[in-house]
Formats: sequence, C-alpha cells, structure tokens
Amino acid sequence: AGDPEAGKAKAGVCAACHGPAGKASIPGYPHIAGQNKEYLANALKAFRSGERKGGFAALMSPMAAPLSDQDIEDLAAYFSTL
Amino acid sequence: AGDPEAGKAKAGVCAACHGPAGKASIPGYPHIAGQNKEYLANALKAFRSGERKGGFAALMSPMAAPLSDQDIEDLAAYFSTL
Repeated sequence: AGDPEAGKAKAGVCAACHGPAGKASIPGYPHIAGQNKEYLANALKAFRSGERKGGFAALMSPMAAPLSDQDIEDLAAYFSTL
Repeated sequence: AGDPEAGKAKAGVCAACHGPAGKASIPGYPHIAGQNKEYLANALKAFRSGERKGGFAALMSPMAAPLSDQDIEDLAAYFSTL
C-alpha cells in the first residue's frame, strides 16, 4: 500500500502544475487533492506506460516515466488524503 | 459561459459512475465534484473528439459524443460548483 508521508516527500515536482496542496491554481489543470486513490494510481500508470494519449499525456508521461510502482502508490496515497 | 442549473439537468447519466454529487463511490473512478471547470470542459471535448485515448476514453467517448459545446460548458459549470 502507499505511504502518504513518503508520497509527500516525492510530490515536489507535482506542485508546479497541481498546486502546493493538490489544488491547481491554473484553471486548465486538474485538482488532484482528495481524488480517488485508485484513480490517481491508474492514471499515473497509464501515463507511464503511454497507454493514455491526448489531453495532458504529452506533459504527464515524462513526469510518470521515472516513477516506480511504490512511488505511484505513495503519491496516490498522499494526494488522496488532502 | 456554462449554466450550472442547466448542467445539473443534464448530469443524470454521469451519476452512474461519478456518484450523485460528483463523488465517485467506485474507487477506480475519478471524483469530479469541485474539479477545475476548464479542465472538465477540456477533458469532455478531448473525449468527444477522440483525442484522448487509453484510460477511461473507451468508456467516456460515447458519453461525450452526443454533447454540444453548451452541454459541456453547463456540465463543467455544474460539477465545478459542487
């Protein structure tokens, strides 16, 4: 399972678009604070694998590429608890 | 601009997966309540046009296909206000 504290430590780069607490100040970007944990993990995996295309995939796939499964579980756990 | 009341009237089918008030009870589905309005509208348009692939596109494209631009603005306005 994901560890929100470990996720928080890995979430620095996410803040650039999703806001410091997962609430995107840029209207076109999605809030991820309080989002369903399983949805977040599935979305990151789909970006990482390249399965998800179009929309923000071009921006998100490079972000997700270096993430391990554990990183993804931790990040999803962290943002879903905000 | 979108009209949240008109959006509410068109949101019946969305509740099946996204929950009656935009909070998905099914963990793999995304909450859309309180999501950024512009993100919601862009996502619906990307599903409608087929630009967005993978993830839930197979499920969402048929849902978005019949929507007019006004429908999309109304739905985005409605869910972003929840």
